[in-house]
Parts: sequence; C-alpha cells; structure tokens
Amino acid sequence: MINVGLVGGTGYTGVELLRILVQHPQVNLKVVTSRGEDGTPVSDMFPNLRPFTNITFSVPDVKTLCECDLVFFATPHGVAMEMAPELVKAGVKIIDLGADFRIKDVVEWSKWYGLEHTCPDIVEQAVYGLPEVNREAIKQAQVIANPGCYPTAAQLGLLPLIEQGLIEVEGIIADCKSGVSGAGRQAKIGGLLCEASESFSAYGVPGHRHLPEIKQGLQNANNNNEVGLTFVPHLTPMIRGIHATLYAKLKDTSVDLQKVFEERYANEPFVDVLPAGSHPATRNVKGSNFNQIAVHRQQGGDTVIILSVIDNLVKGAAGQAVQNMNIMFGFDERAGMTQPAMLP
Amino acid sequence: MINVGLVGGTGYTGVELLRILVQHPQVNLKVVTSRGEDGTPVSDMFPNLRPFTNITFSVPDVKTLCECDLVFFATPHGVAMEMAPELVKAGVKIIDLGADFRIKDVVEWSKWYGLEHTCPDIVEQAVYGLPEVNREAIKQAQVIANPGCYPTAAQLGLLPLIEQGLIEVEGIIADCKSGVSGAGRQAKIGGLLCEASESFSAYGVPGHRHLPEIKQGLQNANNNNEVGLTFVPHLTPMIRGIHATLYAKLKDTSVDLQKVFEERYANEPFVDVLPAGSHPATRNVKGSNFNQIAVHRQQGGDTVIILSVIDNLVKGAAGQAVQNMNIMFGFDERAGMTQPAMLP
Amino acid sequence: MINVGLVGGTGYTGVELLRILVQHPQVNLKVVTSRGEDGTPVSDMFPNLRPFTNITFSVPDVKTLCECDLVFFATPHGVAMEMAPELVKAGVKIIDLGADFRIKDVVEWSKWYGLEHTCPDIVEQAVYGLPEVNREAIKQAQVIANPGCYPTAAQLGLLPLIEQGLIEVEGIIADCKSGVSGAGRQAKIGGLLCEASESFSAYGVPGHRHLPEIKQGLQNANNNNEVGLTFVPHLTPMIRGIHATLYAKLKDTSVDLQKVFEERYANEPFVDVLPAGSHPATRNVKGSNFNQIAVHRQQGGDTVIILSVIDNLVKGAAGQAVQNMNIMFGFDERAGMTQPAMLP
Amino acid sequence: MINVGLVGGTGYTGVELLRILVQHPQVNLKVVTSRGEDGTPVSDMFPNLRPFTNITFSVPDVKTLCECDLVFFATPHGVAMEMAPELVKAGVKIIDLGADFRIKDVVEWSKWYGLEHTCPDIVEQAVYGLPEVNREAIKQAQVIANPGCYPTAAQLGLLPLIEQGLIEVEGIIADCKSGVSGAGRQAKIGGLLCEASESFSAYGVPGHRHLPEIKQGLQNANNNNEVGLTFVPHLTPMIRGIHATLYAKLKDTSVDLQKVFEERYANEPFVDVLPAGSHPATRNVKGSNFNQIAVHRQQGGDTVIILSVIDNLVKGAAGQAVQNMNIMFGFDERAGMTQPAMLP
Repeated sequence: MINVGLVGGTGYTGVELLRILVQHPQVNLKVVTSRGEDGTPVSDMFPNLRPFTNITFSVPDVKTLCECDLVFFATPHGVAMEMAPELVKAGVKIIDLGADFRIKDVVEWSKWYGLEHTCPDIVEQAVYGLPEVNREAIKQAQVIANPGCYPTAAQLGLLPLIEQGLIEVEGIIADCKSGVSGAGRQAKIGGLLCEASESFSAYGVPGHRHLPEIKQGLQNANNNNEVGLTFVPHLTPMIRGIHATLYAKLKDTSVDLQKVFEERYANEPFVDVLPAGSHPATRNVKGSNFNQIAVHRQQGGDTVIILSVIDNLVKGAAGQAVQNMNIMFGFDERAGMTQPAMLP
Repeated sequence: MINVGLVGGTGYTGVELLRILVQHPQVNLKVVTSRGEDGTPVSDMFPNLRPFTNITFSVPDVKTLCECDLVFFATPHGVAMEMAPELVKAGVKIIDLGADFRIKDVVEWSKWYGLEHTCPDIVEQAVYGLPEVNREAIKQAQVIANPGCYPTAAQLGLLPLIEQGLIEVEGIIADCKSGVSGAGRQAKIGGLLCEASESFSAYGVPGHRHLPEIKQGLQNANNNNEVGLTFVPHLTPMIRGIHATLYAKLKDTSVDLQKVFEERYANEPFVDVLPAGSHPATRNVKGSNFNQIAVHRQQGGDTVIILSVIDNLVKGAAGQAVQNMNIMFGFDERAGMTQPAMLP
Repeated sequence: MINVGLVGGTGYTGVELLRILVQHPQVNLKVVTSRGEDGTPVSDMFPNLRPFTNITFSVPDVKTLCECDLVFFATPHGVAMEMAPELVKAGVKIIDLGADFRIKDVVEWSKWYGLEHTCPDIVEQAVYGLPEVNREAIKQAQVIANPGCYPTAAQLGLLPLIEQGLIEVEGIIADCKSGVSGAGRQAKIGGLLCEASESFSAYGVPGHRHLPEIKQGLQNANNNNEVGLTFVPHLTPMIRGIHATLYAKLKDTSVDLQKVFEERYANEPFVDVLPAGSHPATRNVKGSNFNQIAVHRQQGGDTVIILSVIDNLVKGAAGQAVQNMNIMFGFDERAGMTQPAMLP
Repeated sequence: MINVGLVGGTGYTGVELLRILVQHPQVNLKVVTSRGEDGTPVSDMFPNLRPFTNITFSVPDVKTLCECDLVFFATPHGVAMEMAPELVKAGVKIIDLGADFRIKDVVEWSKWYGLEHTCPDIVEQAVYGLPEVNREAIKQAQVIANPGCYPTAAQLGLLPLIEQGLIEVEGIIADCKSGVSGAGRQAKIGGLLCEASESFSAYGVPGHRHLPEIKQGLQNANNNNEVGLTFVPHLTPMIRGIHATLYAKLKDTSVDLQKVFEERYANEPFVDVLPAGSHPATRNVKGSNFNQIAVHRQQGGDTVIILSVIDNLVKGAAGQAVQNMNIMFGFDERAGMTQPAMLP
C-alpha cells in the first residue's frame, strides 16, 4: 500500500486517474489538489466517484505532497517543473502526465512550449515512460515523463519496423485521429458538442507539439539517426480513442510483417497484435489500457500501413501512468486495470 | 468458484454479461452458446474480450448446461421457457434476462408477448430479481426473472412513495428515455447511426411490453391494489443509459421526500440517492450497476418529480443479473462490479 | 426588398438567421453587429456562409440600425430592451428572438430574469409572435416577441385541446427534451461534447424561465383562467431538435382527437399533424421550420399524450422569426424556408 | 421544366436527391421506383418530404422511365447497366449515381465489382461527371457516370498538383474519413449506432473499390501515365461528411501552392479554396454541394498536405448529380442548391 498524491485533479486525465486509483488494490489516495476547487468533494465534480471516495480537493501544498510515496501531475505544462525539484529532493517519486519532462532537448522543448525550462537536470534524469521501450529504466526511475497520447499510439505502431531497419525513415506519415477528450476539460467554444460533433477536421497541420516527441522516440529507435516524419492530428466526433494510421515505405517487401509485430510484443501485457487482415476499432479498447495493432500492405505494394488504436485517456494518459507506477513499485503490471474495454 | 453457462451470447446483454463475468473472482465461464456462431471464438465477435477469454460459441446443449451451477439466458422471449424445465429438474439455477418469467399473470403475458406460455409452474416459482424488493426471496430462488431495463429505473424511483402511500396511484406518469442499445444488437434500419443519432422520438406510445411489468411491480407495492400508469418510452441518441422522469400527485406536500428516499435505500449497495436539488445524468452510471435518484417538487407544487438513472445494460440487465447471482450464491453483492462508472 | 439588421450575430440563433436571410429573396442584409468581433468577416466565424456573404461584424450603432426596415435581436435578455425605444421611435420594426418582450407581467418577468424592465410600454405593445395564434396581430405589429423554443413546441401541442376545453387544465405535464444548441454558443463546461454527448439529464426542475411563458400562452387560450403546469426540460445528446411529450387528462374520451388537431392546423403552412398512430422524430424537421404533431391515448385510457417536435433553432427561433417577418411585410409566409428538412 | 425519374429511391442517396429535386425550379418529379415499396408514399418512408410531395414508390418500368427526359439511378452496382441500353435507345438521358459506368476498363471493373459488364459500349460513351474536369463533355453527354464520394474529395484535392506536374506521382497517400451514411441505408450490424458511434476504424485497407476510380482520374490528369496511390478509407462516427487528407512529395518547394489551387478553381461554383493556414471541417459543407480545400506544408518540409472536405451525400453523390443535370440541360449550375450548409 502506497500513499499517492494527485496534483491537478479536475481535468479528464485527472478523473480517469482517479477512476483507476480508487479501486487499485495497493493505493491509498492521500491528496487531490486543485487551486480553484479547494474544499469541494471530488465526487461533486465527478459523480461517478460518489460511492468510491470522500476525498476533497485541496490547494497544492508541497509539504503534504512530500508525505506521499508518489505524486502524479495531471496539469498543464509548466506546473510540474515548478514543484518537481522540491519533491525530488524529498525522495518522492513523480509521474508527470504533462509535457514537462518528455523532450530531452530543452531548447527544442522551449520552442514548442513557449517557456524557459526551470529544471533541465530533472529532464535529464527523467525516464520516458513507455514501458514497451523503457521497462527496466522505469523500475529504477524517480521521475517519469508519461508519454503523450498521439506519441504512444504512433510509436507503438512504428517502433518494431524502425528498430529492425525495415522501412525508409524519410517520408514516414502519421495520420492520427483523436476523440475530443484529448482537448481537455476546458471551457472553449471548439470543444462544444455543437461544434465538434457531426464534424471532422484536421488541426495543427503546420506543426503540433507531439511532433518533436514522436520524432525523438523514433530517432532513439533509429540509433539516434534523423527520421523524417509528417504528423497530422484530426479531431474526431467521439469522446475517447486515438486511431493512428501510419504509412512508410518498406525496404524489402518479402519480410513477414505480421511476425515482426507479434514477436516484438509477445510479452507485452497491454499490446495486442491483431490477426493479419484485421481493422482495429477504437471502441475495442475504450476504457482499457490496451493498444491494438494491425499491419497491412495494400494490393501488394511497398507501402506498409499500420493501424494502431488506444484509449487516449488510458494507454494515452492515466492508464499508462498507472502501468508505470505498477512497474516502479513492483506491483503486478496490470493491477487496477484488469477490466475489459466497455463495448458497446 | 461456480460453473456458469450463458445461453445467447451474441447480443449487447450477452457481451455485457461476459465483460463482467470474465473478471468475476468466483466465476468459471464454462459455456457460451449461439446457434449461428458455433465454433467462432467469442472474442472474434467482441474484440474487447480478446485478452480475457479463449472460449468459443457452441450450439446450446442441455446436457452441457446441466453441468453448470447457474445458467444465464440472454435470449429473446420464448427461448428460456423452452429450456428451463429440464434445467430446473436437474437442479441448475437460472437467471433469465429475457421476459419469460417476469409477468405472473400468464394470460396477460401471452397478450403482450404473443406466445402461449409453456411452463406456468416455473413462472409461479420464479422470483422477480429486483434485489431492492426481493433480496430474501432471491437468496432461496432457483429461477430468477431478471427485471427489464425501464421497469428497473421506474420502479426504483416510484416504490418508496407507493410503499408508504404518499402519492395518488391513479395518474402516475413514467416518461422514460433509453439509449439505443436497449433495442439490441439486431440488423434493423431503425437502429442505424444514420437513423437514430441526431434525433429523438417516442415509440410504443399505444402500449409497450414493459407497461404491464412496471404496473405489476407498483401494484405489489400497493398491497395488490390497482395502479394507474402511463408509460412512454423514447429513443435517445446515445449508446447506454436510461433516464426515467416520473410524475405523481402527492397526497401531502409536507412530507420530507428526500428523507423518504434516503432511508428507503440507506443499505442498498447500488442505489445512490443524490442530495436535494440534484439532476442525475446517465453518464454518472455508464458501465456501472448504480442507480442514481433525485426527488423534486417544482415551484412548491403538489406534483412530485423523480429522476432515476441507470445503465440499461448493467443495472437494467447484465449487472443486475450478476447482482442476483451474487445474492443467490452468497458472494459479496458487489463482486465483479467494483469499478466506478466511466466518465467521460 | 427590405433592409435588415441583426444585433447579435455570433450565437447559434444568429448564424441560423443568417443562413436563412442570405438566400431570402426579399432581404438585403445591411448590418450584423457584434461588439467583440468588430471588423471580422461573418464568414470567418461561420465558414458555411463563405460563398454567400462578405458582410463583416460591426459594433452595434443605433443610427445605422435606424436605416433598416427591420432589426432582429438575437441577444441575451436585457439587450433588446435597451435599444428598442430608440428604434421604435424611429419607426423601425423589431423582432426580438430573446426574452425581453415575451412576458406581459413585467413583475413576473423580473422575478425570472433578474432585471428591472426598462420599457414596460413596449412590452405592452409587443405581439407574441406565434403565428398560429396571433397572425392578424403580427401583420400590424411593430415589435414582435419571438417565442422561446420550448414554449413553441409545448403550446402548439396543447393549444387545440385547451382552446376547446377538452382537458383538465390542472395537472398538465410538459416533459421536454432539447438538443444542446438550445444552450447557445457559449464557452461553458456543460456544453462540451465530452460532457453532453453519451448522456441524458434533466435540468432546471425546480423552475425554468420558459415555465411562465408557456403558462401565459396556455392561460390566454383558457380565457385567461389559471392553468396548472409542470414543465421539465432535459438535455439531449444531439445538436438540434425539441421533442415535447405532453400529458393531460381528458374530460371526455369520446372526442376525435385526431380530427381536433387536423382541423385546428388545416391552414397552417408549418404545422404538420401526422396520421393517427405516428411517432414524430426530431430529425423529420431538422433544419426546417416545420412542427410535427401526433396525438395518442394509451390502452384506451383518459390521458391524452401529444408528441410535438420542432427544430429549436428554426421553428423555435430563427425560422419563426423569419415567418413573422414574412407576415409583417406581406411576403409569402414560406419565403426563405422552402427546403425540406435534412434527413439523414 | 423537365420530367425526371429516379430508379432506387429508398437509400440515402435517393432521399438526398429527392430533397433537392422536390424544390428544384425546373424539375417535375415523374416517377420514383422501388420494387419493395411499390405503392408506399415516399413521404411515409422519409417524413421530411411530407409537405413537399405526394408521389408514391412504384415498380421500375422501362416504358414509364422512357417518358422522362432524365433518369437518375441511385441503385447498387449492376442495376443501371441492365436498364440503361433501352433508355439510351429511347433517347433518355441517364445519370448513374452507382458505379456501373465509372471505370473505363471493364475488365478492371469486373475484378472489383464481381460482375461481367453487360454494356461496355455505354461505358465507353459515358462521361465521368466531375464538372471541374469534364464540364464541356457533360454538356453533350447522354450518360453520366456520377463520381464516387471518396473519389470526388480525393481528386479535387490532388488534380491541380498533378495537372501541373508539381508532385512525385509515386507514393501519393489518400487517408480518407467518411461519415456512416456512406455505407448506405442497409440493415447491417456494422452500421448500428451502437457499433459505429463512439468509435473510429479503418476498413478496406487491402483494397477498396474507389481505389481504381481515383487512380483512373489521377492518371488521366497525368497524361495517362501511371500513378502510385495508397488509399485508406475510415469510418467516422457522424452521419455526413468526407475529409480527405492527402499527402504527396513536392518536386519543388518554391511553388506558391495557394495560388495554384486558387487559380485552378477560380471559376468553379462549388469549390472553395480556403485562405492559407485553414483547416476545413466537414460541417462547413454539411447539406451543401461545396467542396472546401486547404493546402499545407509542415515545418517547411517537402510533403504537401491537402485537406479536402465534402458532404458525401451531396457533392459526393446527389448534389453532384444535380450539378451534372443542370449542366446537361443548360440550367443555372447552382439551381436547386442555393442554400448554405447547415451549421451547427
């Protein structure tokens, strides 16, 4: 049983983390913070939690947080880096669901996030929390940079091919579609049902913050050599789910792609490579931490097409964070996430 | 650990039951039947179950079913009554999620369901599986008639008032709204996304099969005296959820209605009476077995308005069935259903 | 050809009015105001209008508005009453799509809208713009109070019965369901797709501003005698549409209700009484100015059930406003609205 | 005024055609056929048309059709080619919204559609009805092959670049997303709201029938030289709309792409090139015949990204058919389609 704190509990990532944590067998939820909602019972804001917790939001307070074994940050970028140094000094473990520690190149980070980074040393020590790549490092980590939603779906779909040098690394295309919860629980016109439902559109085509994060991951897999990536995110009229459709040119069309993927993920508890010819749907993983992947070639061509789906709030955020926690503390990696996805 | 069979596993009620059963700590899923899908892995049809079960559909076979401790029927009406007698004789317990054993008056049943009833004796012994009313009888029952979705939402909202004689029992109105999954997983034009989304309509206004079921329950609570009920179901453009808006005339406006409801359901694990002034939303209970209730009067008038929400596939079907199973076998009544609703 | 101004063009009512007006054969759109968007092309905000108008938003200015033959207000309550006196003095006709002139009793108005009324004299002269009731008065009116969305659907469903004294006027119930566009184009959490889709809930049960408006209309039809009404609005996960399900007790069950409705609306261009036994769906009228009505009794009982559907943005707002304009200026009452609803 | 017949009026393409035709100023709707619905009023099936037409479905009959000036086929493939020869002989003009005359290579057609073609001569004379390419030929045509929905969106986005030789024609990627109405009004499980809403998935990745159609169009623009295309369609949880996201490698990054598109479509009544930096949304064109296009490069790279949106039922089917009719008969090309898109 560990004591856990959550900084920033009022967003969709926050409530999803709470949904998992309140029934996690080894977690004692000690503190959930929100400046704006100090004193409000968490279940007043999220009535699905009414029968599960009486905890109230409180103002973030480093002293209280330092009494936790682990603190999750489910905050906009810039918040975690302000509080992390003191917590790190106190020996508290940190999982940041935001973007503060994801990009190793802090100059690049500043360019995309518009802030000076205040603790580059913690960036350096932080482990990028994609268990399928960094499981051993996660076990030892004090600070985890939990991956973004698009980067999780895109990297899991592309890594097997890049690691084995099977594709041309220039000209990779990641055409990604996300449910609206990816935009967060913010009072903005664009997220209204009347704006976002019954419509589909791309956004951020000139450049999106997840572009450098995906590139970094792919380049690590490519022995730190440059990778050419075009990444286009789209807003999809549904609450949850990411579907990444990934395109690359094969070096050799005789490779058994199905086998490459099945072997790469044979021991992964949350990656499910579908049978050849499958088309994963985001609803197959709704509410669960699974990633489903299918790999295709069209009409015998030399373009490989990978379909990779996750729930953006689970494997793309809160679920992956709990998976990282489970690894860090030696729990069963599936603990708290033993439920099938909700279908329909 | 008990051996469980499921007859009719290809509908939404069936897959929801499977979603709960595959991770229920005391259940061994022995057989899932479907005439049409014999030999197909269940997870081919429902890919959310891929990592959880390797079971395949098989043709229903009484001998195999007799090896189970409990058999669920998630079938259209008329199926359970054909197979029940043999199973009952063999000592197998039965929970019918269909309508075969819900209406005690078999003549009335025939009128609404268009079939002659083949085992009125089992109707007589069957217990109507609404735990909030019949928990003690359920413990002893061999056959459970699992309530319909609308009847569950409507009865839980009205029973406290009728049991205590607080409302005029003529002129009760149940204006009920259901998600589209209530229509089942059937290839019909009316259920298409292009027909049912972005639209709202009533149906079955002249008379719906759940009318006699709700009336029977209310009359039982009214010392078997007649109750006058108008029930109008509506199709709502969403997958899951029932919202019952219930209207009745109060005999005495000085009664503390909030207290009546809170006391009636104080010990119920799955009924959550919201604070005065609340408006429950169906999403608060999506994917969970909870019923949320709020009670109102408008502008000090003498009409009581009760808002009662459930997930039609859980408390309105599969979850209530598992709750009944838990009661019948002496398990924790919450077993298998310890997760908060999925929000958003 | 008349010159038309629109005050408040950035909401859903505003854009819907523009959608109709830009292709209305007798309208020259002279000015569209918005304080916040001064100088922005209207079609930047509403790209569906790109090929139809080059007009830009401008700051509201009484002098320019006075050059119009007609000014629509699609503004929050309180705005129209500030600007109306000067326009009225200048002889400009006004159609207020807001609530400023709907309630004849200004004390009652203040109670519900929380403001002192600044021009009770204009309230007195204003005509309630429900053409099916006040067509002759509309022809002569200078100021039209365009009805609210729920009041339109509810009154059209109940008026035939009240006018002819066919129902008990105590205990009328209006259970109404609206698409989310009824909440307006406002950056509020509650209207987000992730909050409002895949959910259904009531709101305003203790008392909603449309309650006194509906009561006023029903009482007018009841020879100014009191009417007892319970009105419960619900938020429905779709963009457009209102479905009113109306319940009342019949004085005499032998009346031919179908005939009553058909005769009452025989000459109405936008009210469509469906054949006996029908269930109107909101999608039947999506994007059109029609109201579809069906009338039922259940199992031969003495409760009459009326189903009344409109598009809240058209017959419930902008379309009805244009219908009023057409009547005021002697145009074909259907002008600008000769398109069928969009289905699917 | 021309007499028009419609063969196959019960699908979504059919009802959309009817929605346009019943208010088209130069069309007299003479006959609407359906084998299964003989004698049913069209407005019983599509109640949005109630106030607009009294026509009933009738069994298709060549003699009656021969009395029309123009016959639309909104039928599954294989139907139009059976009836076309007789109509052609009788001098009737034909617009086939199905696939029978789209592919010039009848062997290729048979491969994808699984039928022997019965009138290759009509295929040869038929004009592919994309007005932006073939307007002059359409004016003279007797038989129009109305383009598919995906092919319309994809070709309009890619043609300007191919015609001018600005991109590498190997390795073009068309990642396309369609609303569910693209699957037609068919009673199939996959189209149910409970299957298709709140989910996103690719389909037909190994090969879809629109692949050869798009390739044919691109190759024509490429002086009949081979084009390498990967086409992946996706099912999007909404009723209407197609969003094509198109990727190709630029030969020369110094070209002013915005100007290329604006000039190419300067005189097109239904193609709207958005300002540089825009992201079109499908809702901008919902219910209208417009195509909106934006062109991008990401981070200064050499991949051009084109975003092209249409309403699949209008510009992707019925609207384009009416546009073709207008051109064939010398009507205003916009006739019957002078309404803005419905937003929201």
